[in-house]
Amino acid sequence: MNILDEEFAEFQKLPTEERIGCFEKNGRLFDMIRSQQLNREIIDDIYRITNHLRRISKSKPGSVFMQNILCHKRAMLWFTQPSSRTFLSFESACHMLGIKTSEIRDARVSSEVKGESYDDSLRTFSSYTDLIIMRHKGENIAERAAWLLNTRTNRQVPVINGGSGSDQHPTQAILDVYTLQRSFEKQGGLDGKTILMCGDLKRGRTARSLSYLMKNFEDIKIIYAAPQAFQMKEDVCSFLERHNIPYLLETEALENVLPEADAIYVTRIQDEHDAIADESSRIDTSRFRLRPLDMSKVKSTAVIMHPFPRRDEIDVAIDSDPRAMYWRQERNGMWTRAALIAYIFDVHDEILNY
Amino acid sequence: MNILDEEFAEFQKLPTEERIGCFEKNGRLFDMIRSQQLNREIIDDIYRITNHLRRISKSKPGSVFMQNILCHKRAMLWFTQPSSRTFLSFESACHMLGIKTSEIRDARVSSEVKGESYDDSLRTFSSYTDLIIMRHKGENIAERAAWLLNTRTNRQVPVINGGSGSDQHPTQAILDVYTLQRSFEKQGGLDGKTILMCGDLKRGRTARSLSYLMKNFEDIKIIYAAPQAFQMKEDVCSFLERHNIPYLLETEALENVLPEADAIYVTRIQDEHDAIADESSRIDTSRFRLRPLDMSKVKSTAVIMHPFPRRDEIDVAIDSDPRAMYWRQERNGMWTRAALIAYIFDVHDEILNY
Amino acid sequence: MNILDEEFAEFQKLPTEERIGCFEKNGRLFDMIRSQQLNREIIDDIYRITNHLRRISKSKPGSVFMQNILCHKRAMLWFTQPSSRTFLSFESACHMLGIKTSEIRDARVSSEVKGESYDDSLRTFSSYTDLIIMRHKGENIAERAAWLLNTRTNRQVPVINGGSGSDQHPTQAILDVYTLQRSFEKQGGLDGKTILMCGDLKRGRTARSLSYLMKNFEDIKIIYAAPQAFQMKEDVCSFLERHNIPYLLETEALENVLPEADAIYVTRIQDEHDAIADESSRIDTSRFRLRPLDMSKVKSTAVIMHPFPRRDEIDVAIDSDPRAMYWRQERNGMWTRAALIAYIFDVHDEILNY
Repeated sequence: MNILDEEFAEFQKLPTEERIGCFEKNGRLFDMIRSQQLNREIIDDIYRITNHLRRISKSKPGSVFMQNILCHKRAMLWFTQPSSRTFLSFESACHMLGIKTSEIRDARVSSEVKGESYDDSLRTFSSYTDLIIMRHKGENIAERAAWLLNTRTNRQVPVINGGSGSDQHPTQAILDVYTLQRSFEKQGGLDGKTILMCGDLKRGRTARSLSYLMKNFEDIKIIYAAPQAFQMKEDVCSFLERHNIPYLLETEALENVLPEADAIYVTRIQDEHDAIADESSRIDTSRFRLRPLDMSKVKSTAVIMHPFPRRDEIDVAIDSDPRAMYWRQERNGMWTRAALIAYIFDVHDEILNY
Repeated sequence: MNILDEEFAEFQKLPTEERIGCFEKNGRLFDMIRSQQLNREIIDDIYRITNHLRRISKSKPGSVFMQNILCHKRAMLWFTQPSSRTFLSFESACHMLGIKTSEIRDARVSSEVKGESYDDSLRTFSSYTDLIIMRHKGENIAERAAWLLNTRTNRQVPVINGGSGSDQHPTQAILDVYTLQRSFEKQGGLDGKTILMCGDLKRGRTARSLSYLMKNFEDIKIIYAAPQAFQMKEDVCSFLERHNIPYLLETEALENVLPEADAIYVTRIQDEHDAIADESSRIDTSRFRLRPLDMSKVKSTAVIMHPFPRRDEIDVAIDSDPRAMYWRQERNGMWTRAALIAYIFDVHDEILNY
Repeated sequence: MNILDEEFAEFQKLPTEERIGCFEKNGRLFDMIRSQQLNREIIDDIYRITNHLRRISKSKPGSVFMQNILCHKRAMLWFTQPSSRTFLSFESACHMLGIKTSEIRDARVSSEVKGESYDDSLRTFSSYTDLIIMRHKGENIAERAAWLLNTRTNRQVPVINGGSGSDQHPTQAILDVYTLQRSFEKQGGLDGKTILMCGDLKRGRTARSLSYLMKNFEDIKIIYAAPQAFQMKEDVCSFLERHNIPYLLETEALENVLPEADAIYVTRIQDEHDAIADESSRIDTSRFRLRPLDMSKVKSTAVIMHPFPRRDEIDVAIDSDPRAMYWRQERNGMWTRAALIAYIFDVHDEILNY
């Protein structure tokens, strides 16, 4: 333990609200670390920016305009955990805004093999680039990165968390909420809807983040459908209780609750987090998959979502159903991440005024 | 087997001509999957575009002009088999046209490690980019990609096959034909020439593709020089017969046929395809190498080609011989691939009119 | 051994001065291979260009101006040894000047796995790009690359050595000297200063290169502080003697010599070069680390430098000391490398005249 380890341990003892202040600059979002930073105002801003950005990008002149906005910036994509979607959507988002990208996707090519500390690697990346987007398997690693740069160095570049440990993946939450908002645009918005989440709710960080974000909306109902072993953990449930969000736990079969849902958010079993080998495969999840024959029980106005990658939770035959929103949701990841970057660099007005 | 596997199996039973139709849009080439798609008109178009592109790129203003043509596009380079030349020449071709690139060169950094299907990975890349360039060790994988996007999704982006399985590598064929056409520009063109191919004709996909393409030219003669074990397979020979292209099989020594050749296309032994360990090394290929002393038997106007990588098939001392065309052939890979991309995006007129 | 191996072996027997001539074009630096190429004029030119470049890059219009300078060029970053700093600073330098980059950081994705020779790989990269920046664990590999392209091919692109073998890393030397010059700008420049180097002087290429470069300055004194087993080798010491640069060997403790130093250049133990396992760890280096309590012995005007990565040679608590120059030194790597590239392409006047 060096002195920074000790100081960060102290920082982590602070209440969430206080820590979040460390990730702001001049009262605005500077680093995107945890979904708790996302209030309704930011969510709605990003919704608006995303919609503009999508429209502008449709034409070549619009696309050229966009590429000039941040063409003087460079970003580091530091992904030491496998990722297709988050990595590529961030990279595409950068390219869309004219940001040049560098990447480390394999720790073996970096100086970590020569014994460099995580902190020193981070400071190095901050020396050469203007934005750090990172994924790491460790808990709170992105938070430490932002804390270190903001409070211990004079080279402060924004840090965006592209997944850190088992609980933090705020930009996934942003794209999920955006997709919900957009899907319900003609149905009075997300307020008042019933969100059904199923799959590995215990270990999947996306369902957890999405649950937290629901506090920003009115009259949301949540249904958690999973075998008992994979049910949503106590901490999220008590969070919902504190915010008066009604929720239901379904542990028998997905089909029991399908008819009530406005959105069905399916997740895969996170067996990479198994403590014991084959832990996951010993649990019967067969009654929590979405099969073609289930679709008749789903509302005609409902949307099916999935954060991907998927295995057999959703049959590919459902892909062509108009209610399947997951491919558009995936693509929204790129748009919302570009919007977030523009928001952090405070250049979104250029987009909104185009 | 999911439903898509079954449907694609059905598709593959169709005659080649019908399948090729699936890779066109509005009567034009949309995906570049197999060399059978290349007719004389396309070959000549690409020849012309390539020549313009090379000339324009010589100056800085020309280069800046070129980078504006497709600056609003992004490409995915998805190469899960090792590649230097194909990868880098495609990447450079993209950069030349202003296309931003993303890459996956190591499946371990992607979501395949989390059990994502090939189809889902593909659809993901199509969500974020406007062009997919791919190499894969599996047979017909690029074909399936183009088929899937064109017929089963509403996000249709062109797919270019950068090598799929043991038989398909159409852009190599394009650059080979371009190099032949350009080499014989002052000798009346490629029509009427004798092409000698040697090396591992049985398993090398480049010699096979090049043979197929010869049907687009007049009065071509082909000589295949290889030990019996590596001779050209029956399917290609009967293709030549059907198209009245005379060919000769030489199984004793390369030098026997050297004097007749206008172009000598040398290929390496593809021992990575050995079914049994050391299979290749047990076959004597020593009489099918091109040595400095052989050059006196080669026509003074002939060209020596090689798709690379090479081992000992061509002695490095030959590199400085003016007939050695392989380094220029390699560089042509970049120009022709840029031309192909411009052709697929239907922006080649901008280049031709510069 | 092929013919090129023999010819290069002959070339290497030439005196350094003559070999250096091979890396010039029209009397100007063309390839950057060894620090012996750096004379005072080049060092001062790069100093000036770097300072301009830094200033220009501060604004968006300046940054856009810079990105137009070499926007028609492509660079290959060929790094087969792990690297964070050198790789990323070069990549950022390229992006800053508008150069598009391609990279190979893992030999397994390239055609080396198919038995391609080093020379052929190099020529391939030169076919597609306008600049090759390379790191390789082998001795003289960058030198061979430049020699091969300049004397044996007609596709001559500059080669920049980003570290080759145990002795050559000239761009590290450039950034170190730049940092020293800049640090002493208000103290009469680098001439007349005392440079203390400590750590693994025997095997660390940075301390060796920096020592060589000191011949370009007046009245420099050098102190080498290291355990006997890691002391500076005879060849460098006799080089200093030939150039009348006084030096001192301290083998007991760093603190003995700290008060005399104007610059303290700390390096880590290069245990990756251990001939026997644990060779390094058996040597006591505890008296050659820089601890917080040592800082009181250091001149108030002195600068602490480190080429990174670091381990425990410098306590992180020293990072916040104003004399700690290593993070700025690291960032200077990007600026000086951009300046070097501009210098090699002879476009630095555009920068100086902005």
